[in-house]
Amino acid sequence: MTGLRGLLGAPPIVVTAGVEVLAAALEAQGVDVHRTDWRPPEPGTAAALAVVASDPDVAGANATAVARMTGVRPHLVSVATAREVIPGMTGDTLLHAGPPLEWRDASGPMRGAIMGALLYEGIAASPEEAATLAASGRIELSPCHHHMAAGPMAGVVSPSMPVAVVEDGGRTAYATLNEGLGNVLRYGAYGPEVIERLRWMEQVLAPVVASALRITGPVDLRAITAQALQMGDDGHNRNRAGTSLFLRTLGAALVADDATPASRRAEVFRFIDGNDHFMLNLVMAAGKLAADAASGVAGSSLVTAMARNGTEFGIRLSGTGDRWFTAPAPTVDGLYLGTFTAEDANPDIGDSAITETVGLGGFAMAASPAIVGFVGGTAAGAVRRTLEMYEITLTEHPVYRIPFLESRGTPTGIDATLVVRTRIRPQINTGIAGKEPGVGMVGAGLVEAPMACFVAAVRALAGSRRR
Amino acid sequence: MTGLRGLLGAPPIVVTAGVEVLAAALEAQGVDVHRTDWRPPEPGTAAALAVVASDPDVAGANATAVARMTGVRPHLVSVATAREVIPGMTGDTLLHAGPPLEWRDASGPMRGAIMGALLYEGIAASPEEAATLAASGRIELSPCHHHMAAGPMAGVVSPSMPVAVVEDGGRTAYATLNEGLGNVLRYGAYGPEVIERLRWMEQVLAPVVASALRITGPVDLRAITAQALQMGDDGHNRNRAGTSLFLRTLGAALVADDATPASRRAEVFRFIDGNDHFMLNLVMAAGKLAADAASGVAGSSLVTAMARNGTEFGIRLSGTGDRWFTAPAPTVDGLYLGTFTAEDANPDIGDSAITETVGLGGFAMAASPAIVGFVGGTAAGAVRRTLEMYEITLTEHPVYRIPFLESRGTPTGIDATLVVRTRIRPQINTGIAGKEPGVGMVGAGLVEAPMACFVAAVRALAGSRRR
Repeated sequence: MTGLRGLLGAPPIVVTAGVEVLAAALEAQGVDVHRTDWRPPEPGTAAALAVVASDPDVAGANATAVARMTGVRPHLVSVATAREVIPGMTGDTLLHAGPPLEWRDASGPMRGAIMGALLYEGIAASPEEAATLAASGRIELSPCHHHMAAGPMAGVVSPSMPVAVVEDGGRTAYATLNEGLGNVLRYGAYGPEVIERLRWMEQVLAPVVASALRITGPVDLRAITAQALQMGDDGHNRNRAGTSLFLRTLGAALVADDATPASRRAEVFRFIDGNDHFMLNLVMAAGKLAADAASGVAGSSLVTAMARNGTEFGIRLSGTGDRWFTAPAPTVDGLYLGTFTAEDANPDIGDSAITETVGLGGFAMAASPAIVGFVGGTAAGAVRRTLEMYEITLTEHPVYRIPFLESRGTPTGIDATLVVRTRIRPQINTGIAGKEPGVGMVGAGLVEAPMACFVAAVRALAGSRRR
Repeated sequence: MTGLRGLLGAPPIVVTAGVEVLAAALEAQGVDVHRTDWRPPEPGTAAALAVVASDPDVAGANATAVARMTGVRPHLVSVATAREVIPGMTGDTLLHAGPPLEWRDASGPMRGAIMGALLYEGIAASPEEAATLAASGRIELSPCHHHMAAGPMAGVVSPSMPVAVVEDGGRTAYATLNEGLGNVLRYGAYGPEVIERLRWMEQVLAPVVASALRITGPVDLRAITAQALQMGDDGHNRNRAGTSLFLRTLGAALVADDATPASRRAEVFRFIDGNDHFMLNLVMAAGKLAADAASGVAGSSLVTAMARNGTEFGIRLSGTGDRWFTAPAPTVDGLYLGTFTAEDANPDIGDSAITETVGLGGFAMAASPAIVGFVGGTAAGAVRRTLEMYEITLTEHPVYRIPFLESRGTPTGIDATLVVRTRIRPQINTGIAGKEPGVGMVGAGLVEAPMACFVAAVRALAGSRRR
């Protein structure tokens, strides 16, 4: 708050926590009072919070976990075919966003993306055949998060898709390459132009980028993201700067790489230049790498995943390992494209909340005032929400910094006990998919993670700590 | 201020103008008081201000002039050789930054740049010979501003140098291409690596960019600059976003242009990628185009040039045409590179204050909180200074907007009478040249335009209006 107060040349302020009579009395004396949003903890969590609070190992476990999260140095090393690199991926597997899901529970955009993937793979010849096949149970649906991957929106990864391979020493994570906005598979569209674009990505984009990466060597995604936050990105729904910097990194190789035809390299340059979200998927793979590095620390209440499958919202904690804690996916408060309205919107969907999980996206919106043109709200509100996220996080990111807050690190590492205790829910900014299969993107907006996930997670963590 | 106050959830504030007893009384009653910096006008200007204020044509003249300024749509159309395109440029002409200057009055970096240009042109064989020749008067020194050009720092343009050609319909402006930071000609360095780089720029950079521009067609510099302000640029000392967007615009042509060798195109891509100031010179040519469009409106107190030759700071007004109003160049308050200190600094130098003249640079710093790492100060201070510049400007720019100020247009079009009346001087952010010839860049910082220029200009304008 120093910067903001300094801006107005105001004296120090008094912060009151909940006790309105005190605030009113101070104001009557001419004191500048800042009311915080303090409330009692979420009902039914007092016992679990007491267990965690009295556990002498939790603070250390959280410090260990969040240090692992912020210490990861993700590099894009190559682009490869999903079935050849992703562990546990067979020719009959489709990965999807969010916690585990059956076809019968899948929302419209998830169904549309699964149908599109089966068309793209040539496993089904028509949308109807694809839907029948998916409903038959002969296709294995498995969360991206179970395969060291993260997928935006529907997040469907099929065996032939090219994926970015992101590494930090021995650890690896994966994400598909971004298709652009509008009628794209990840928003549930599956028309011929969607399938055609996916084929072009497989046959042109992937080999050209892979070849260029052999010239550039590993691309430091953390450095690009840190710079991009200085340039108005949040790393989730605004990636114009990150995409620009990535293209600068790749550009000279694209100019000079005689291993691929110049016309295809120019096509690839134009495709990435035409898609300011290109960097998102790389940030997500980097985020997955950081979150996985932080997982499995006994006693830690650090959130290591927030992910939505379009039906349910799920989270994981470091101290409870691979277990998901889910609640119905919320609806998004957003801006709609063209003639679409909230009536057309699917509930919240996608693994992209991995960005918020690692201190970007909704947590970094104070770095990204221009994002409000895409997701709604005001620049002042974006700053206010970032300030609020410091209340529920364990640290400030050492390299992701917010220039307007005098280079303060982004609020990083959600502590589930702080969410339950303060009742401040993590803010996510996100795209909005049409609820019917085949429609695609209808808007973008803001959403808060459901409290029920955090309540269940904190209770489970407490259960694991009782002796 | 709405956004900032809204951020803190504070009630409306009382603004007091100068009368301290009132402010103190209000504060004693618990009212949040915002003291403005009101002062009486600059001494000795009351009569001139009265003449201008009572002139019924001035407001209309200013509206006309500033509308011309903001209405210009600059496009980069080509790169050409200075002597072939710049009007009035002969083989014996060197252009320089700022108001008119003789060699005997030239500062160290200006002398260094002139000497370097004579070495680069092959007119002199040694620095000593170059200095002797320049002192002899056989080389014509002429301000860039007299030739539809603008040059950063020393601003020296010699006949063989490639220049960007920026147009809007029938009007044209020029600027050299940016050499990068450090030991470069424009900062007064003239060592072998400086001359070699200039030759490379002439023989490789210029033809490759010119050829790529034939593929892309005219590049809309206004659109790039508007986007860059959404991405943390100020358009003067932070141009990382603008440079990125320019490279994106040019990139596909650089990949595919078989009219020039791929190895040279890759060199050019790497050169621009390695120089985040590349966009500055293009913004300056665009600014010169806008400022010239606004000049020559009888009665207008709009500032159409602020420029420094390293010895003097000069301004021009629309209503007084080509006349310069000068004062000694001020010193810059800055951050120094390596072991350099304020002792090593030359006074303020360069035509780059054309950016502030058209609503960018120091006027747009609220868009660019990260710039404080380069020029010093705080992000909060950068916002405060932008807010102050609204007090001395005629309009808010229609397309250059500041996301953090809820997309308010940048303060644009300095009214010299407002400067004199409020005693708020235009803020400029700038590089700092070493005061000795040959040294190069020593730092970057902030400076305010000297009040004496504005006093003289307002008096002259009043003189032109008396009947």
